[in-house]
Amino acid sequence: MDGGLLEKEQIMQARILSVGLIVLMFSMVGCGRSETSPTQAQNSGGSDAINQLAADRGLTPDDVRAALMTYQPSGRLDDYIMFSSGGHSGQVFVIGMPSMRLLRSIAVFTPESWQGWGYGVGDEVLAGGDVNGKANRWGDTHHPALSETGGDYDGQWLFINDKANARIAVIDLRDFETKQIVKNPVAINDHGGAMVTPNTEYVIEGGQYATPLGWSYAPLEQYNQSYRGMVTLWKFDRKAGRIDPQRSFALELPPYWQDIFDAGKLASEGWIFGNSFNTELATGGIEKGNAPFEAGASQRDADYLHIINLKKAEQAYKDGKFDRVNGFAVISLKTCIDEGILFFAPEPKSPHGVDVAPKGEFIVVSGKLDPHVTIYSIDRIKQAIADQNWELEAYGVPVLDLDAVVEARVEVGLGPLHTQFDPHGYAYTSLFLDTQVARWTLGGAYSELHPEPAWTVAGKVRVHYNVGHIATAEGDTVSPDGKYLVSMNKWSVDRFFHPGPLFPQNFQLIDITEGGDKMQLLYDMPIGVGEPHYAQIIEAAKLKPWAIYPEVGWDPHTQQVRADAAKAGEERIERDGKTVHVYMTAVRSHFNPEHVEVNEGDHVVWSITNVERAEDATHGLAIPAYNINLSLEAGEAVTFEFDADQPGTFAFYCSEFCSALHLEMAGYLLVKPAEMAMSQ
Amino acid sequence: MDGGLLEKEQIMQARILSVGLIVLMFSMVGCGRSETSPTQAQNSGGSDAINQLAADRGLTPDDVRAALMTYQPSGRLDDYIMFSSGGHSGQVFVIGMPSMRLLRSIAVFTPESWQGWGYGVGDEVLAGGDVNGKANRWGDTHHPALSETGGDYDGQWLFINDKANARIAVIDLRDFETKQIVKNPVAINDHGGAMVTPNTEYVIEGGQYATPLGWSYAPLEQYNQSYRGMVTLWKFDRKAGRIDPQRSFALELPPYWQDIFDAGKLASEGWIFGNSFNTELATGGIEKGNAPFEAGASQRDADYLHIINLKKAEQAYKDGKFDRVNGFAVISLKTCIDEGILFFAPEPKSPHGVDVAPKGEFIVVSGKLDPHVTIYSIDRIKQAIADQNWELEAYGVPVLDLDAVVEARVEVGLGPLHTQFDPHGYAYTSLFLDTQVARWTLGGAYSELHPEPAWTVAGKVRVHYNVGHIATAEGDTVSPDGKYLVSMNKWSVDRFFHPGPLFPQNFQLIDITEGGDKMQLLYDMPIGVGEPHYAQIIEAAKLKPWAIYPEVGWDPHTQQVRADAAKAGEERIERDGKTVHVYMTAVRSHFNPEHVEVNEGDHVVWSITNVERAEDATHGLAIPAYNINLSLEAGEAVTFEFDADQPGTFAFYCSEFCSALHLEMAGYLLVKPAEMAMSQ
Repeated sequence: MDGGLLEKEQIMQARILSVGLIVLMFSMVGCGRSETSPTQAQNSGGSDAINQLAADRGLTPDDVRAALMTYQPSGRLDDYIMFSSGGHSGQVFVIGMPSMRLLRSIAVFTPESWQGWGYGVGDEVLAGGDVNGKANRWGDTHHPALSETGGDYDGQWLFINDKANARIAVIDLRDFETKQIVKNPVAINDHGGAMVTPNTEYVIEGGQYATPLGWSYAPLEQYNQSYRGMVTLWKFDRKAGRIDPQRSFALELPPYWQDIFDAGKLASEGWIFGNSFNTELATGGIEKGNAPFEAGASQRDADYLHIINLKKAEQAYKDGKFDRVNGFAVISLKTCIDEGILFFAPEPKSPHGVDVAPKGEFIVVSGKLDPHVTIYSIDRIKQAIADQNWELEAYGVPVLDLDAVVEARVEVGLGPLHTQFDPHGYAYTSLFLDTQVARWTLGGAYSELHPEPAWTVAGKVRVHYNVGHIATAEGDTVSPDGKYLVSMNKWSVDRFFHPGPLFPQNFQLIDITEGGDKMQLLYDMPIGVGEPHYAQIIEAAKLKPWAIYPEVGWDPHTQQVRADAAKAGEERIERDGKTVHVYMTAVRSHFNPEHVEVNEGDHVVWSITNVERAEDATHGLAIPAYNINLSLEAGEAVTFEFDADQPGTFAFYCSEFCSALHLEMAGYLLVKPAEMAMSQ
Repeated sequence: MDGGLLEKEQIMQARILSVGLIVLMFSMVGCGRSETSPTQAQNSGGSDAINQLAADRGLTPDDVRAALMTYQPSGRLDDYIMFSSGGHSGQVFVIGMPSMRLLRSIAVFTPESWQGWGYGVGDEVLAGGDVNGKANRWGDTHHPALSETGGDYDGQWLFINDKANARIAVIDLRDFETKQIVKNPVAINDHGGAMVTPNTEYVIEGGQYATPLGWSYAPLEQYNQSYRGMVTLWKFDRKAGRIDPQRSFALELPPYWQDIFDAGKLASEGWIFGNSFNTELATGGIEKGNAPFEAGASQRDADYLHIINLKKAEQAYKDGKFDRVNGFAVISLKTCIDEGILFFAPEPKSPHGVDVAPKGEFIVVSGKLDPHVTIYSIDRIKQAIADQNWELEAYGVPVLDLDAVVEARVEVGLGPLHTQFDPHGYAYTSLFLDTQVARWTLGGAYSELHPEPAWTVAGKVRVHYNVGHIATAEGDTVSPDGKYLVSMNKWSVDRFFHPGPLFPQNFQLIDITEGGDKMQLLYDMPIGVGEPHYAQIIEAAKLKPWAIYPEVGWDPHTQQVRADAAKAGEERIERDGKTVHVYMTAVRSHFNPEHVEVNEGDHVVWSITNVERAEDATHGLAIPAYNINLSLEAGEAVTFEFDADQPGTFAFYCSEFCSALHLEMAGYLLVKPAEMAMSQ
């Protein structure tokens, strides 16, 4: 990598640059804050100091611009919020832009003790993701989807999939906490999720590696006849704030490996699009002398773009034209074909992107092993269907004629992967193999928005390294904002100090405010807590998070006051046989009660309420030996249970540094040994 | 908070500032990179663009300086590395400075699926922290301690305590992974850990909330006679890279609540110091009409500084003058008194800092409820002991005469908490209630290093808000570097977009390169993944992390090649009765074998090796339904086991985006239902 060379050059440039900075600082000294005396201005670095600083730090003019574009003075809030998946951390990252600062990791599929998630808080939500009643307590989050109204982000909900166990989580953006996890009853893993329809009627979850539906056992020799792909349409109930499995359904698909899905919008509303790979039906087995999947699944020049008529699928479901798998409604492949629900079109091999343009008329597909992006037109697709301009593939699905449905092709570079959009008629496609992002022009109604000819490459920017997905501000909605593009890079190699052999991955912030080839890399953000797989970026002003819970005694799970919430003045401990119910409050800086005395073998039901009404007044409750830690935001009430199976003397305490007397915010859990309790 | 006012003012200033920036940018355009044409320089923002940018962004001169001091161009490595506890996240954060970017969260006490920690990797290490054989899978990390040689950081090891369950973890800084967790056999919770002696002979772990030793049951009525405090000296074996419990011991202390400890160095080497609170012996019980702990533990004007003669303690241990509690060596309180191991001195009430100055001659104590820091002299302490200038407290411990041992007092402000040092004879003390950091001058041999009179306040800087601990670069060693101070703030309130009612906490980077009152706040770093409780900052050049594991087949736990590591060319599956042993390799972009066929009820032992030798070439192994996810760095080998209790067809895959054909890096685990297996 050219780090060394770059550095020398930067230092040289900085020496020259410092001339300019001297001039800058003279003007600065004259314009300190009103309450700033010249002396203080000197303190904060006079011309010599800044001059020396720039030279020492070797900042080029571009570096200075980037620094000034991304720096947020203390107390300055960010303009945009990025929601990024955490990959196999199982969480979702909330990142402020342009400062690229991590504001929160939302605990979703993986227990996280700072938020108490899985340690007394959210246990019932996590249990919703059990697989055959077996706890699976991690996730591989891939594609976050913000709820939409009219194809635009509305800032109310966030959905995220778990690739490993085919699960979907629902996050409420009032408190940024996970409210529901549903396990897909048909597939054991997924990939094409979560994506939403333009008014969030449905959350889309596409499969990945084919298995028999319900992931029941079948030998690989029966792959073609027994294994299947799928796409699930989860019905979202906005009022309840929950996915409703009873009103959801799946489509049976051939055992090709589904990849990414996207919902049509505007011109293509009512359709959904997905792509696929391994249409070779390879089953691997390198140990048996077979081609490994990487080769076997990459033989054909084309895979199949999946084109689904959602309206017809809905109708078939309403008409009861479905079977049940694990009790879940599944529209059979035959019905999908017979009812005109499912069509294919050839697409460039091993695709990993299917992205609908802002007006909905174009669908952009990237095939990682083809240097082009291929643009399909929804009008052409509809016409080809009307004309029955198709051939049937092995499973009887109509494959539309490629030339009839393709609007354009653009050669963007090696390893095209994912495409995003801006308001100026530009599309941006990540190039995994070139480790670049290409900016190219859309045609049709977008042609007037940019000076370059339609369907041509306008510029490229280098990234570091192996870019997967990218995100532009609101870049997959009907009204992209442009301004910023974030590249999510899989390898960082020489970009950062590496903390051992596990290197951080890398978000790179790129300025796309100017057109043509004018794109500047502004900021490198390492992320050493997960794999940033995919992200969406929303204007911060669209989010209306709560600063405290609406009422004291609030249950974040139901978003209403708990009936059993402990109330100030009514703290107590009640015994009913071998069940002990604790009603406890927390306030700076004590718990009430401070003593909890039970007998070994008792079952303890512990309700605790943080009765604070001040913003940021969070308390924790840590109980040693019992694997319990809560995070209680102002107003929050939680009830947790455990069996008092560990006799002894245990000091519980507040795990948030809440006040000067935080260390004194403690109490004793006394578990009297069974033999002593009986001898009473 | 004054965010609004500040903002208006900043915009006003920026308008004026932009004049200066125009001049700056003229010089910039003239000094673009050698390969940069004027046009391109314009692209990267000509004078108008920068002018507008500064005005729009409302940056003051101080903001510009701060931006240029903290910005790291792409590929520029940070100069310092901060190791911060994650509080009740149970992890350790690795942060680059001055950019304040999170490079990694090291999984320690809490399972973390991105690193596979607790999901097939590190399970045996986590099990070391079980409490009475019961899994406790979270921690409350408080005080990281870098290993030292001669009182200076040597960059080899990191230790961290878990307050909740009184555990200490050992992290190897070659691969930044946790190698050992030990549970304290005497205490159920701790606080004064982890601190190390100047050559890392011992890792110190002080208690917190008193319980009967071994946390056995005793009613609170027996508090004075049955409850006890403790400090444990864990022997660290550098060669083995492990704490050796067989060569470790604890001291029994009165049931005061121990707080922070620090090891003496240079002038005070061979001594350790701790402080305490609740010398009132309060037992709380607000629900019974008693004073709550916050009041009961804050009645006396003074608590007790604990002064321990480590050499004499070691001798008593060597002479067998100890009892055993839960099999662990404990030197009784009586022996501590009789052998001259333990002394007290009065200290300001409710202290939370005991910090030894660089040369070791002064011990600085901060009492949160006293506006002074109190400075003790080791020479005076030794003299008072020699003179037997003491009175005995309730448990017979000699309490040295305060006037005899105090060197100085400095009134620093409200809520003094923690003190760090720099090379210029300045000390820095966090002020929780004033939300400031005070810089003050040391006397004695340090007087010549600073212009101000000894033992006086030189300046203060405001922080946001409720600062707990602070860290300066190598600021608790025998040779502090100065340069940077980081304030760890408990509340952020209005500093950031708040993602729901759970606000991020806040690291603030402060420039302390200049003397006197010249301290500038440079950067706010929110941290939404844990509570940054305490940190140490080391020069990056002192760390020598591995980029890949030394040999293929490496076991990070033992730091040597695994005997059972799967080797390239020797991949296989062996059955021995109902046990199936899989020997698998991973390389871009396939697993070998790709098919793993077992029967329901089999026990599966799965050895996998990442045979890559390229830096950053990490692979994962995700197995649905079985709660398994591994992170395998280049060369790493892991063996994990599970019972095949879930029949069906499960696709396993690589959970790291490792190549363009990453999605094809998958295989099938086929678990044949028992009835089908039997019918064969």
